[in-house]
Amino acid sequence: MRSIRIGLLGLGQIGSSLYKLVSRKAAFFQKRYGVQFKIARILVKNMRKKRFSGLDAKRLTSQASQILKDPSIDVVVELIGGVDSAKKYVLEALRSGKDVITANKALLAEKGEEISALAGKLGRQVFFEASVGGGIPVIKTIREGLGANRIDSILGIVNGTCNYILTQMSREGLDFQTALEQAQKKGFAEPDPSFDIDGIDSAHKIAVLARLAFEQNIPFRDVYCEGIRHITEQDINFAKNFGYCIKLLAIAKRDASGIDARVQPTLVPQDHILAKVDGSFNAILLDGDETGEILLYGRGAGPEPTASAVMSDLIDYSRGLESRFPEASKKPLKVKNISSILSRYYLRFSVLDQPGVLSKIAGILGKYNVSISDVIQSERKSGTVVPLILLTHHVHEKEIRSAVERIDAMKSMIRSKSRVIRIEA
Amino acid sequence: MRSIRIGLLGLGQIGSSLYKLVSRKAAFFQKRYGVQFKIARILVKNMRKKRFSGLDAKRLTSQASQILKDPSIDVVVELIGGVDSAKKYVLEALRSGKDVITANKALLAEKGEEISALAGKLGRQVFFEASVGGGIPVIKTIREGLGANRIDSILGIVNGTCNYILTQMSREGLDFQTALEQAQKKGFAEPDPSFDIDGIDSAHKIAVLARLAFEQNIPFRDVYCEGIRHITEQDINFAKNFGYCIKLLAIAKRDASGIDARVQPTLVPQDHILAKVDGSFNAILLDGDETGEILLYGRGAGPEPTASAVMSDLIDYSRGLESRFPEASKKPLKVKNISSILSRYYLRFSVLDQPGVLSKIAGILGKYNVSISDVIQSERKSGTVVPLILLTHHVHEKEIRSAVERIDAMKSMIRSKSRVIRIEA
Repeated sequence: MRSIRIGLLGLGQIGSSLYKLVSRKAAFFQKRYGVQFKIARILVKNMRKKRFSGLDAKRLTSQASQILKDPSIDVVVELIGGVDSAKKYVLEALRSGKDVITANKALLAEKGEEISALAGKLGRQVFFEASVGGGIPVIKTIREGLGANRIDSILGIVNGTCNYILTQMSREGLDFQTALEQAQKKGFAEPDPSFDIDGIDSAHKIAVLARLAFEQNIPFRDVYCEGIRHITEQDINFAKNFGYCIKLLAIAKRDASGIDARVQPTLVPQDHILAKVDGSFNAILLDGDETGEILLYGRGAGPEPTASAVMSDLIDYSRGLESRFPEASKKPLKVKNISSILSRYYLRFSVLDQPGVLSKIAGILGKYNVSISDVIQSERKSGTVVPLILLTHHVHEKEIRSAVERIDAMKSMIRSKSRVIRIEA
Repeated sequence: MRSIRIGLLGLGQIGSSLYKLVSRKAAFFQKRYGVQFKIARILVKNMRKKRFSGLDAKRLTSQASQILKDPSIDVVVELIGGVDSAKKYVLEALRSGKDVITANKALLAEKGEEISALAGKLGRQVFFEASVGGGIPVIKTIREGLGANRIDSILGIVNGTCNYILTQMSREGLDFQTALEQAQKKGFAEPDPSFDIDGIDSAHKIAVLARLAFEQNIPFRDVYCEGIRHITEQDINFAKNFGYCIKLLAIAKRDASGIDARVQPTLVPQDHILAKVDGSFNAILLDGDETGEILLYGRGAGPEPTASAVMSDLIDYSRGLESRFPEASKKPLKVKNISSILSRYYLRFSVLDQPGVLSKIAGILGKYNVSISDVIQSERKSGTVVPLILLTHHVHEKEIRSAVERIDAMKSMIRSKSRVIRIEA
C-alpha cells in the first residue's frame, strides 16, 4: 500500500485534531483511498509541553529544517498560523520540492501572490480548503463543483464569533458589549476579540475566496474592512422594523469596472437565506452563471471540522490532484475604492426633535442625489433628541459620505455622529 | 491541446443546454483546464425535429451504435432518462471501454448495483453529479469534500415541485389542488405530476445519495415512499401552531441495526435550517462525524444548473479522477422496514366533539406505549366534528399504526381516517 509521509508544522488545536484523526481513521483511509497517511514529524515550539495521550513524542522536533529538508517527507501541512514564520516555512517547503497544505488565511490573503508565483514557477501545489469555512468544502466547490461556472458574486458569513454576537443581540436584545462578554464566556470569542469583531478575519477569508473565484490578485490592503463594534441594539431593532436583520458580510463582486471586495455590517432582508444563518454558523453564497445561487452552510470553525478540511486536501493530494491555486491574471482588475461602490443605505440620525428637521436633512440628501425609500421618525416631545431612520435607494458611497458629513456638521440639530450601514441582497 | 470527444445520448432540455455550454465556453475550458471538449455525436430519436440554432446537424444520429461502438468517442454522457434503454446503453458503453456520465437518478436507484458491478469489473468510471440536486455539488461533497467523514445521516429537500407546492400552501393558504395547478401553470410541475408529488423522484435521489454515502446497496423497492397529496391546509396550519412547517423530506440514516431510507411529508421545526428552504429550492443536510452538519442549497433542477453538473463531471473525467461509484459493501446492512423505525408523530383525528373522547383516544395510545407531548383541541359546539391534534414523543411506527387503526375503528366517535405525519430534526 502507498504511504504518504506528512510533515506537520504546529501542534495547536487543529494540528492535534489532525494527528488524532489520522490515527483514529487509519483503517478507514486505507480501505477507502488505498493510502496510509503518516504524520512523520511535527514542528513544535515547546518540546516540554504536556500534550494529549496517544501522541508519539519521538516525532516532535523544534527544528523546522528537520521537516523541510527531510527528503522522506512528501507533503507539508502548515498549521502554525501568523504570517512571517509561516511564509518562510511554506516557501522553503516549496523550494525543497514539497507540496503544501495550509489552513492559514492570513498568510494566503497577505502573501498569496508571492506563494502562488513560486508554486507556479516550481510546479508545486498549494492546497487550502481549511483556510475558509472550517469543514465546509467551499474551496472545492468554487474550484471543481462549480468548475463550469463564472462566479461573479460571493456573499459570506465567514466569522462565527461575529455572527454569534449579532444573533444574540437580536434574539436577546443585548447591547454589543454584553453579547461580546457572553461570547467570550462561552468560548466563541477570544480574550482579545479584535481580530474577529473588527472584521480582519473575514477580510482575510474573502480575499482568499475572491482570489480563487476571480483568478485575480487581491491586494489585502485594498479590501475595505469594517467591524461590528458600533452596531447598537437600536440599529438591530430599526432594521427589524423595516424587515431586515444585520449580519457581518464578506462581499466580493466582479464586473467590467473592477472588483468590489469588502467586509461590513449589512442589512439583509429577513427572507433572504443568509438571514437564516444564526449563531456561530457560517455560510457562503456563490453566484454561478450556470447554476444560479448556491449556498454552503455549516460550522465554520473548530478543530475537528478544520482538521476534516485539511484531511480532504491530503486525500486530494494523494490522488495527484492539482490545487489550481491561481496565479495572478494577466488582465488584472483593480479593487475598487469603497467610495466608488454603489449600494443602498440605512441612515440613522440623532436629531433634536424640532420642526423642519426632516425637510432639512432630506434637502441635503437630495442635493447629493440620495433618494429615500423608507423613513421612520418616532413622535416624541419637541426639543428632545430622537432617532430619524432613512433607507435609501442605490447611490454611490461618496455621495452618501459627503451628504452625511454635511448633515453632521449642522450642530444645531444633530446631536451625535450619524450611523451609516449598507444594505445588500 | 488535449481533446475529449463526447458521445451524447439524448438532446432534450439538459442535452441542449450541455451542447450550448460546451460551445459557448470552449475558450474558458481550454484556458482553465487545458482541454478541448467536443460533443462529437448525439443520439436522438427524431432526426427531423426542429432544434436550436447553432446545432451542427451532422453530429446527430439515430443509431446508438454509432456512438457506443465508435472508438474515437472517449466518454458517453447519458441524458435520455428512463431505465430500460438507458441501462442498455450505459452497460454497452462500459463494455466498449468508455467511461460514463449520467444524470439519470432512476437508472442509478433501480439498477445501480448492476452498473457498479460491471464498471468495477471493467475498471471503468461512472460519474453522476447531475443525478441529484441540479447544479448543487452534493455528490462531490459526499465523495471528496467530506472525504474524511463517516456520514450517518442525510436529510434532503430534493424535489423542487413539492417544495414549491408546500411553500405556496403555507404562504398563501391554498389547498393542495390549487397549489398544484398554480405550479403547473408556472412550469414548476409536469402535466402528469405523480412522479414528483408521490415522492418517487425524491426516493430515487435519496437511494443514490445513501448508496454513495453509506457504500451500501439500497434495493429501491425497500425505500419507503409517501408523497404530499394528502397534506391539507389544515395540517399546515396546525403544524405552524406547534412551531413546525411541513416539508417533503428524503431521509437516509444508518446505524448498527440497518439503514433507514424513506421519503415522507415531515414536520420540521421552524427554526431548523431546512425550514428556511422555500419555493422551488433544494437543500441537502449531511451530518459528517468530523464536520457536523453541512447544508448545500440551490436550484435543484433546470437545464442550465444540471448541465453545469454534467460539465463538472466532464472536467473531473478530463483530470483522470476516479468517480468512486461504490460497489456494494461486503458487510451489507439491511434497509429497515418502515414499521420498525422510531419517530415522533403528528396525529390528527376528526372526532365527534363529545365528553370523554380525548380520554378514550389517550387511553388507546397509552396502551401502545405512545406518549403525548402536545395537544390542540379547539372548543366547538358539542356534537360537531372537530379536529383533535396530538404530537407524540418517540415511539415505534408499528405501535402508532396499531393504535391509530384501533382508534379509527371506533366509528361512534371518529368521522374520517386519521392523519399521521412524522416529525423530524
